[in-house]
Amino acid sequence: MNKVKIPETTITRLSSYLRIIEKIKEEGTRYTSSLILGERVGLNSDQVRKDLAYFGQFGIRGQGYAVDNLEENLKKILGLNRPWRVAVIGTGNLGSALMAYKGFAKRGFRIVAAFDIDKRKVGRQKGTLTIKDFRDFKKIAETVKIDIGIVAVPEESAIEVINCLTSSGIKAILNFAPLKVSMVKGTKCRNVDLSTELEGLTYFLSSPGI
Amino acid sequence: MNKVKIPETTITRLSSYLRIIEKIKEEGTRYTSSLILGERVGLNSDQVRKDLAYFGQFGIRGQGYAVDNLEENLKKILGLNRPWRVAVIGTGNLGSALMAYKGFAKRGFRIVAAFDIDKRKVGRQKGTLTIKDFRDFKKIAETVKIDIGIVAVPEESAIEVINCLTSSGIKAILNFAPLKVSMVKGTKCRNVDLSTELEGLTYFLSSPGI
Repeated sequence: MNKVKIPETTITRLSSYLRIIEKIKEEGTRYTSSLILGERVGLNSDQVRKDLAYFGQFGIRGQGYAVDNLEENLKKILGLNRPWRVAVIGTGNLGSALMAYKGFAKRGFRIVAAFDIDKRKVGRQKGTLTIKDFRDFKKIAETVKIDIGIVAVPEESAIEVINCLTSSGIKAILNFAPLKVSMVKGTKCRNVDLSTELEGLTYFLSSPGI
Repeated sequence: MNKVKIPETTITRLSSYLRIIEKIKEEGTRYTSSLILGERVGLNSDQVRKDLAYFGQFGIRGQGYAVDNLEENLKKILGLNRPWRVAVIGTGNLGSALMAYKGFAKRGFRIVAAFDIDKRKVGRQKGTLTIKDFRDFKKIAETVKIDIGIVAVPEESAIEVINCLTSSGIKAILNFAPLKVSMVKGTKCRNVDLSTELEGLTYFLSSPGI
């Protein structure tokens, strides 16, 4: 399984499948198909089957996918069957908003530490956390377990912060600064581009039908 | 064209195609194919062709897609060939972060107004904007042209705010509150779920290969 290169977009689609499966479950349906999943997610059924086939054979011929089973498997594949410890770096507006974002806790993401470089912010209380000095990150990361680092610092500091995280052993980073980052092997950085979300709306506004 | 129901995920994928096309262009390549686009986006070539076919015939048999032409068409389809006027509602941490988000301007999204309900915030300056009273939204929207509303208010106020926006004639809304919103016909609301971004990382962290 670890020899096949699985496209990152397949992983993003697994998140979509999981959300649809959860909805289907709420609706009381016990079995579903790649056709139905595809229709609800907006993909052809071949793509759905191909995405899932990377991870095993979840369907039963003639019956489709058992909703409970697929949900459990998707959560397991995505690593959502356990909680994750997240540190936020940068406690400006974005970092503070992310620390307060309720959607994270719902999925098992727990903010366990917050860091800043600004001496006026270090030591301050944010919710249940005390903001720590980012200069001490490496030392703190040795004792406080951190799985994921969220980088919410200005563009000009982002590379330096990301380098510090990876050299401190952080393997996964979510970066909100609008720049491309090259990562060393065995580490992963995802860049969030919020403009993509707006583009779905401008398409709608530009359509002749509305 | 406006009679065919185009899946929302197709639109999201158009954004991905556009980003890849821009990269391909930067690399100096003039022609590309659905196979290459698919590989770089992580989709099979059929899905790429199907997505593009909703909007016309962009490929030339034997040559593939002309990069310049496809870029221009994708921008046109996504409505990115013109600037858009955006209002931010809620000027807490998230709203303030969005107002300062540099990625929006790069794509032609211009924040033209900011609103809050909190009397202590109304009248204050944020960058080049003065925060306006959300109670006056309808009146202000009659004179200040607003294409898109970004809702960055607490969960409990989101529905009320969204209703006010739509009844004031705003057709497109980007909602950051973690709740599902039903919209009336002719209006569109996209809900941002930042957990999805983290799930790509937890997949990576859970993979046996790292």
